[in-house]
Amino acid sequence: MAEAAIKESSRVNGVPVEDLHETIRAVRGNPELGRASFSATNKWLGQGLNETEIGTFHCAGEDRTHVRKFVFRNDEPHVLLGKDEGANPVEFVLHALAGCVTTTTVYHAAARGIKIDELETTLEGDLDLQGLLQTDPSVPSGYQNIRVKMNIKSDADEKQLAELKQFFAYSPVFDTLTRAVKVDVDVNVK
Amino acid sequence: MAEAAIKESSRVNGVPVEDLHETIRAVRGNPELGRASFSATNKWLGQGLNETEIGTFHCAGEDRTHVRKFVFRNDEPHVLLGKDEGANPVEFVLHALAGCVTTTTVYHAAARGIKIDELETTLEGDLDLQGLLQTDPSVPSGYQNIRVKMNIKSDADEKQLAELKQFFAYSPVFDTLTRAVKVDVDVNVK
Repeated sequence: MAEAAIKESSRVNGVPVEDLHETIRAVRGNPELGRASFSATNKWLGQGLNETEIGTFHCAGEDRTHVRKFVFRNDEPHVLLGKDEGANPVEFVLHALAGCVTTTTVYHAAARGIKIDELETTLEGDLDLQGLLQTDPSVPSGYQNIRVKMNIKSDADEKQLAELKQFFAYSPVFDTLTRAVKVDVDVNVK
Repeated sequence: MAEAAIKESSRVNGVPVEDLHETIRAVRGNPELGRASFSATNKWLGQGLNETEIGTFHCAGEDRTHVRKFVFRNDEPHVLLGKDEGANPVEFVLHALAGCVTTTTVYHAAARGIKIDELETTLEGDLDLQGLLQTDPSVPSGYQNIRVKMNIKSDADEKQLAELKQFFAYSPVFDTLTRAVKVDVDVNVK
């Protein structure tokens, strides 16, 4: 019972805050530990359908494997000439962004002892198919803008609430989208 | 049989090419039809776990719904203080990118009558946790670079092979990542 009470007290928003502070100290002490790499393999299954496997990554100085292999399918809706057997790639971008601003907010709040009761996001992104279809090559094919509404329920005080509203900006996916990232594509045909 | 033969001949890479050319003609004739919006809602489930629902979108002048609602979970692996019940957000970015460069290549090839037999991609992305953890705020939190290897099997001729290697650049997710996108985040706390 005493141990359970200790464990309970050491979690904020479900996040083990002592482990979080230990991680922060470790990376501050040895910045090399901050280097991480993620990976994926994908196979085309015909038409707009393809499947990704995610299993291994590098983090905190070691190659690691997830508890299980994660498998996801992209497809296109009928209007975009697919079979609608999965969300499409630009929708998965919204999923990634939603998850990242959420977890970043939850973790940074936990590190500061700010308790969050509920957190929900709704996202919309606009693009113009003239880019993808190349009917007007001057139009970018990707998202022109993305809007995220984040609703948080928390009893935190005024100062903490002001902090809560800023944490999303540390999100890796938010940063990836709002900064031009170097993407090298090497195509081999045989 | 005659109808089946016609339908078969009108597909390249599984893509109905007459419908694809009709889509291209329609957007060229009325660029407004190119406007599309995608959406997602996400709910935090505690710690690093959250769940996205994707159901509706706007495309070709109409609000539309997918055949079914798609649900995906983000989590973090144990080393990043999650329960490893899902891929994490930056891994979903790789999934989205893999699917988008694949479908873009397959569709553009279909439009030009270039047959693809197989297409696989492997992706890696590097980031530095000093950004997310803010131990060094000068370090970007997102991907520093992403590497995509695309392997295509095709009997296309030399000229077509050269084209095949360029189609990924029209991908909406490739464009989204390599260009700085405007992302507005509106945080409400109550």
